[in-house]
Amino acid sequence: MQETRLDTARIRAARRVIDPMFLDTPLYRCEAWEPELGCRVSVKLETANPVRSFKARGTELVASRLVDGGSRAVVCASAGNLGQALAWSGRGRGLDVTVVASRTATAAKLARIRALGARLVLVDGDHELARDRAADIARRDGIRLLEDSLDIETCEGAATIGLELAAAEPTFDAVLVALGGGALATGVGHVLKELAPGVEVICVQPAGAPAMTRSWRARRVVTTDTADTIADGVAGRRPIPAVLDDLLAVADDAVLVREASIVAGMRMLLDHAGLVVEPSAALGIAAILEDRERFAGRHVVTIVCGSNVDLAAYHRWTGTPRH
Amino acid sequence: MQETRLDTARIRAARRVIDPMFLDTPLYRCEAWEPELGCRVSVKLETANPVRSFKARGTELVASRLVDGGSRAVVCASAGNLGQALAWSGRGRGLDVTVVASRTATAAKLARIRALGARLVLVDGDHELARDRAADIARRDGIRLLEDSLDIETCEGAATIGLELAAAEPTFDAVLVALGGGALATGVGHVLKELAPGVEVICVQPAGAPAMTRSWRARRVVTTDTADTIADGVAGRRPIPAVLDDLLAVADDAVLVREASIVAGMRMLLDHAGLVVEPSAALGIAAILEDRERFAGRHVVTIVCGSNVDLAAYHRWTGTPRH
Repeated sequence: MQETRLDTARIRAARRVIDPMFLDTPLYRCEAWEPELGCRVSVKLETANPVRSFKARGTELVASRLVDGGSRAVVCASAGNLGQALAWSGRGRGLDVTVVASRTATAAKLARIRALGARLVLVDGDHELARDRAADIARRDGIRLLEDSLDIETCEGAATIGLELAAAEPTFDAVLVALGGGALATGVGHVLKELAPGVEVICVQPAGAPAMTRSWRARRVVTTDTADTIADGVAGRRPIPAVLDDLLAVADDAVLVREASIVAGMRMLLDHAGLVVEPSAALGIAAILEDRERFAGRHVVTIVCGSNVDLAAYHRWTGTPRH
Repeated sequence: MQETRLDTARIRAARRVIDPMFLDTPLYRCEAWEPELGCRVSVKLETANPVRSFKARGTELVASRLVDGGSRAVVCASAGNLGQALAWSGRGRGLDVTVVASRTATAAKLARIRALGARLVLVDGDHELARDRAADIARRDGIRLLEDSLDIETCEGAATIGLELAAAEPTFDAVLVALGGGALATGVGHVLKELAPGVEVICVQPAGAPAMTRSWRARRVVTTDTADTIADGVAGRRPIPAVLDDLLAVADDAVLVREASIVAGMRMLLDHAGLVVEPSAALGIAAILEDRERFAGRHVVTIVCGSNVDLAAYHRWTGTPRH
């Protein structure tokens, strides 16, 4: 395989640093979907933990290394999941955590960041403005800036999912990975390309926020002026060059899906798995729904990456409104 | 501790027979509930597997031992979860599985039993009539009758949850266990009384189906004429004497909760954990809601035991109806 910034030995070592609560998550087949999807689908469930997303795998590493290095503070920009995870990992280690987010971010995510004791800075703009503001704060205060997908810990943490998938029995044919900044896709992709090279690594992004997918296809960074999707966790506009390079080395494909397919995927997770998830977590099923022929008869794993969602919006999207 | 029919060495050995997919399930704290509940609550999640309940821990043992003994067929009565789990475990081992259920059982459960290839026999009556009919079939066909909670495999399988709880860090003060036939409560209770005797074992049953709780309190079998609860998984009327004896040895308390509290518990699992569960899985939270003072400041584990629910009914109960 082509080189990436990741190293499998380091990823294995990372498992010893991460709270075991976030590791060895459920992986199980959901047969009730199969008549509709036409393929075998297994769920890798990353939501059954205190922060309801996979992000703590990375923040456990970040927080641990910061403390080991004598740091007391860290700031990150976040659509909400990274911030919540960093707040959780930081609180347990006495770190001073600041999270910068868009004022329009998912309210449930912002509420949990506050509840976990982090300082929350809101910006009047989208996630890219939050990234700029977080960088300003880090410079001003002389503290560590954690950059999702760029900082290797976030990729290594996500990559521990890849170790678990590579060790899984029975084996599978393809993995569907939500694509936003790229930490999850490059991390999981790196490990699978090294340990299970026969597995197709397919990244899935909303058509309304296609920057990284377009960049992967063009083999150079392509930015977009807007990002318009309910999948807030993957709604970036400015891919990071180093992350794109890694993605080019490990992804077999990157596909775009419609909002209606994302909602249909959320409904299938509700109807047949009892899981209320955020839109990003349904991207994989959306990809199958949009191209059943591609997956027909194969065994596909989809990573259900987060469940932090505003219930009112969830019910509006899925047609199960609250009374 | 007092003797029960269970043996911890056998329960440890059972772990080697059960498909690992059903073991070492997530155990995690849900802080978002704590302002409302007034105590630390951790979820032991038994729904992230192919049959969406803890029952496969037991049916894996049953099916494995049947095959080892040369049997080819088995019949059980079930409200739906045991039947689904037995169908799953039997299918993988080439067993001929018959499940007897009430015609009024949860449709989603019956559909999954059929989809897994089991023969489904429906009776015009409640679960107790299904038990009688299953016994008739076993006699007529000369095949093994699996009796939930009476047959030791069902208790030993459930008891493997107790091993995982006893090994958990941080430790906790009390466990809330849904009480129906008694396999889950006696299994988990046996292990905790032996390995973590400081943990209070509290059984929770709906006030509308109180037979086992009344029996525990009276220290003799008390039957009821009716069972009236949405918690179909625990709606028995005729406790089994041997199971009651075990429950008397291991349970510290048995409490009854109202239907409204069960629904409130289901809402909390939806609102703050993203989990759509069946009513039986919300009994533990219902118990906290009805007696906050008892649990104030303590760390309580609740076993989320199943998520097979008819969504139309779920939405009706919880006030989140489908469009």
